[in-house]
Amino acid sequence: MTQTASLTWPLIQQARARIEGRVSITPVLTSATLDELSGLKLHFKCETFQKCGAFKARGATNAVFALSDQEARHGVATHSSGNHAAALARAARLRGIPAYIVMPDNTPKAKRDSVSRYGGQITYCAATLAAREATAREIVAATGAAFIHPYDNLMVMAGQGTAAAELLEQVPQLEAIVCPVGGGGLLSGTAVAAKAIKAAIRIIGAEPAGADDAARSFESGQLQGAAHPETIADGLRGALAARTFAEIQAHVDAIARVSEESIVQGMRRLWEVLKIVVEPSGAVPYAAVQSGYAGLEGRHVGIVLTGANLDLDQLPWSPRGAGR
Amino acid sequence: MTQTASLTWPLIQQARARIEGRVSITPVLTSATLDELSGLKLHFKCETFQKCGAFKARGATNAVFALSDQEARHGVATHSSGNHAAALARAARLRGIPAYIVMPDNTPKAKRDSVSRYGGQITYCAATLAAREATAREIVAATGAAFIHPYDNLMVMAGQGTAAAELLEQVPQLEAIVCPVGGGGLLSGTAVAAKAIKAAIRIIGAEPAGADDAARSFESGQLQGAAHPETIADGLRGALAARTFAEIQAHVDAIARVSEESIVQGMRRLWEVLKIVVEPSGAVPYAAVQSGYAGLEGRHVGIVLTGANLDLDQLPWSPRGAGR
Repeated sequence: MTQTASLTWPLIQQARARIEGRVSITPVLTSATLDELSGLKLHFKCETFQKCGAFKARGATNAVFALSDQEARHGVATHSSGNHAAALARAARLRGIPAYIVMPDNTPKAKRDSVSRYGGQITYCAATLAAREATAREIVAATGAAFIHPYDNLMVMAGQGTAAAELLEQVPQLEAIVCPVGGGGLLSGTAVAAKAIKAAIRIIGAEPAGADDAARSFESGQLQGAAHPETIADGLRGALAARTFAEIQAHVDAIARVSEESIVQGMRRLWEVLKIVVEPSGAVPYAAVQSGYAGLEGRHVGIVLTGANLDLDQLPWSPRGAGR
Repeated sequence: MTQTASLTWPLIQQARARIEGRVSITPVLTSATLDELSGLKLHFKCETFQKCGAFKARGATNAVFALSDQEARHGVATHSSGNHAAALARAARLRGIPAYIVMPDNTPKAKRDSVSRYGGQITYCAATLAAREATAREIVAATGAAFIHPYDNLMVMAGQGTAAAELLEQVPQLEAIVCPVGGGGLLSGTAVAAKAIKAAIRIIGAEPAGADDAARSFESGQLQGAAHPETIADGLRGALAARTFAEIQAHVDAIARVSEESIVQGMRRLWEVLKIVVEPSGAVPYAAVQSGYAGLEGRHVGIVLTGANLDLDQLPWSPRGAGR
């Protein structure tokens, strides 16, 4: 697969055509109660209802189907803490090729089960980026599988951008979109897609304060490492790649940090009011908006609820979950 | 309000016109995973996303707006363990009249809060039907409010029937509908509406085995009391009224009993797979279908997910909730 230097709107449009019928068009929910609480008009893009329960189905499906037959014939491989893993396993099964998945051994059971359900072949490793990368390299060497990074991959980034493209067709009046940032695949795709459609729109990343490498990179202009991420939002512990950082620098307006407390409160409120299941990572942009992130008064704001995969035995407000 | 002897399809059609724009048209969800597990084609009517988080908004809104100005001028009153209470408070607020709500003092906090949020005036009483009825009578005598029973009321029953009418427009191929039965308002309305639209459709009530007055009444042909209902499905502890029993005898095909364990398992699976919040009562019809209720192989089955209001601190699979 040819990886051009940067993410473009045509790549996202191609992704949309490629994944059509293979992923869901997800609904947008609104709530008078949440509007009243925030003072904004909020439009929740429910990727919680996406295939595999997360937006990651978009990027993984685009990447798998963008491979030539020659590139795809030995299958695909990745390392991922969860949602990308399940999404890649599902996309590989749709294409009829094997998927080799490297997962940290502390991955929540719900996320392990989804990979197995789609026939992904799991290899466990220590919960460090170095161990994940080394194990994945070994598997690629042994199998000849095509490596599909969870976010440092142009086709993945293009696929993630389709959510914002879809959202802006559903809610053309949006003036801002807030989405979580971990490795930056979704934020890159969102920014490129949304600004191509509507140049004046504001794009804001939301990040746990305990895993704020994107905010630090954005503020300093230099790519920063993840150091020791500490957050309940397990999907957002990764660090930006050079490729995603470049798009974020070029197209994103701000990155907001949110506290752990506001993530848990926000998640709970989304469950109580919207009546849907949202994982901690998915609640981060709502937490950013609700905790008063500046500059958004009275506006139509799109919030990407990115995923809904979590252990129901480990809810952060339950006694067992509270120890996390 | 004139209460004719029995529920008719024209009353449900009138209800639909009356509540249009005042309640939500709720979505229908499907899941390949749940179809595979059940061997059926399941269509979930998500009244979990209804106003106030439950189908009760339909009946309460119809009843409140069916009152003449004269009847409505002193407000409305009811006794209810929760969802009807919030729905009546909301409907009264829409009409600009007071709502007096009698609730048992063990009502979950989430349900109390929703009544207060809509401006309902709560009076607590002991958690027995006798205490609820006596307290409500006193309030009606003191205020002159119109009493709107949670299910023993033709306009409420007609309103509840609109969910099935809507569902059959959304999924015309349905061959059966399963819905929970507590007091029988929803089941009556569902049966009358669905059979008017499609005479051959099967209508099945689902009830906790620990609160099986409807099954006992149905089987014996004699209205049975609720005795001592014991179930986590707090919305289904009520007993049939003569009025709802008559409709159920005339139009319902079967009533299935489900175990407490299957309710909790079913509820959890709906959360995990559909990614939505469903309260225990709402999971009862899915539990009935999943636990192998006979005669439904391969069919298109509509399942009414009736509500989504519960204390997130009291989930039945959490240590604190397990003691319930």
